[in-house]
Amino acid sequence: MQLFGNRESGHSYKVSLALWLAGIAHQYIEIDLGMAREARPEPFRSLAKYGEVPLLVHAGQPFVQSNAILLHLAEHSGVLGGETPERLDRVREWLFWEANRIGFSLPNLRYGLKFIDGGLAPAVEAMLRERLASDLARLEAELGDGRAFVLGDAPTVADVSLCGYLYWPEQAGISVPPAVQAWLKRIASLPGWRHPYDNRA
Amino acid sequence: MQLFGNRESGHSYKVSLALWLAGIAHQYIEIDLGMAREARPEPFRSLAKYGEVPLLVHAGQPFVQSNAILLHLAEHSGVLGGETPERLDRVREWLFWEANRIGFSLPNLRYGLKFIDGGLAPAVEAMLRERLASDLARLEAELGDGRAFVLGDAPTVADVSLCGYLYWPEQAGISVPPAVQAWLKRIASLPGWRHPYDNRA
Repeated sequence: MQLFGNRESGHSYKVSLALWLAGIAHQYIEIDLGMAREARPEPFRSLAKYGEVPLLVHAGQPFVQSNAILLHLAEHSGVLGGETPERLDRVREWLFWEANRIGFSLPNLRYGLKFIDGGLAPAVEAMLRERLASDLARLEAELGDGRAFVLGDAPTVADVSLCGYLYWPEQAGISVPPAVQAWLKRIASLPGWRHPYDNRA
Repeated sequence: MQLFGNRESGHSYKVSLALWLAGIAHQYIEIDLGMAREARPEPFRSLAKYGEVPLLVHAGQPFVQSNAILLHLAEHSGVLGGETPERLDRVREWLFWEANRIGFSLPNLRYGLKFIDGGLAPAVEAMLRERLASDLARLEAELGDGRAFVLGDAPTVADVSLCGYLYWPEQAGISVPPAVQAWLKRIASLPGWRHPYDNRA
């Protein structure tokens, strides 16, 4: 497998993290997102129709959209939630929640604060902060019952997806509530875990 | 199967539409979203942990998150994209794009214009309009190559999801570009199709 990603992309990190936790050997290729799309190297330019990371190439086929890639990896590897159809149903509910909720509010807030000159318009920042507070409150309520991971005792790609931007709380100017914090530490203690800025080959 | 939904929810409409197009018999129960969550009728109140529609009950199990339900239906029925694992991989890419892009920008813009007194803050409305314009441009570019549906000659739950709020363009104050418009007409001519406000039992 080949993964084309970028170290500043939490969406790329999700896929890297799933590969590390599942122990799947792969080649990682960093894509410079500052480079114009038409100048990016092949085969990335041809395979990623919209020039977006992450792009996974598996058995010659390109896969895009981080959460779709996570489902593919879970099914392919039979771990991290891919063990049974019933478990995959629950994983998918969380992945779609992520895509529409904390996978929107948090990356867009962080992007605005870190990468946009002058930051976000105040009303937009307020809207993103309000949504993110609601998203974190839901995660906190879920994890507050003492379970280890979102679907119980074992981690799944739902955990991998949900934590994608949460190892950078300072970049979004947020504080992480205690049950979510404890869950992030449990994920970080899993064999194979790395921080998004860990750039070992 | 039982579907708990609301006629003003495009997310509910997606699931209704998939059931109609796939010819799956089901009972539809309208949930009054103006009613406090704790006052909503059983079994909805117990089964929908966050009180959200749509909720599908299948073989006694509850399923939430419209796009996750669509995948479940596609796999269960073997139609609308559930025919092969390879086709499901492509369907999922579109469903996650939808959840993060046009399934965020369009419902939130419509909601602000139709249901929030005084409307959205101007900067928030501008942000949503800008994202939606980009989302519609991508769909227009995809469908502009003459294909009938997003994954080719046959409709899938990706079409069902993407069109969820697009039969209400006037409610979001948008005009729909021509290739998208033609695609919406093709979906509307499929056997079993209904408009979201069609409330026949």
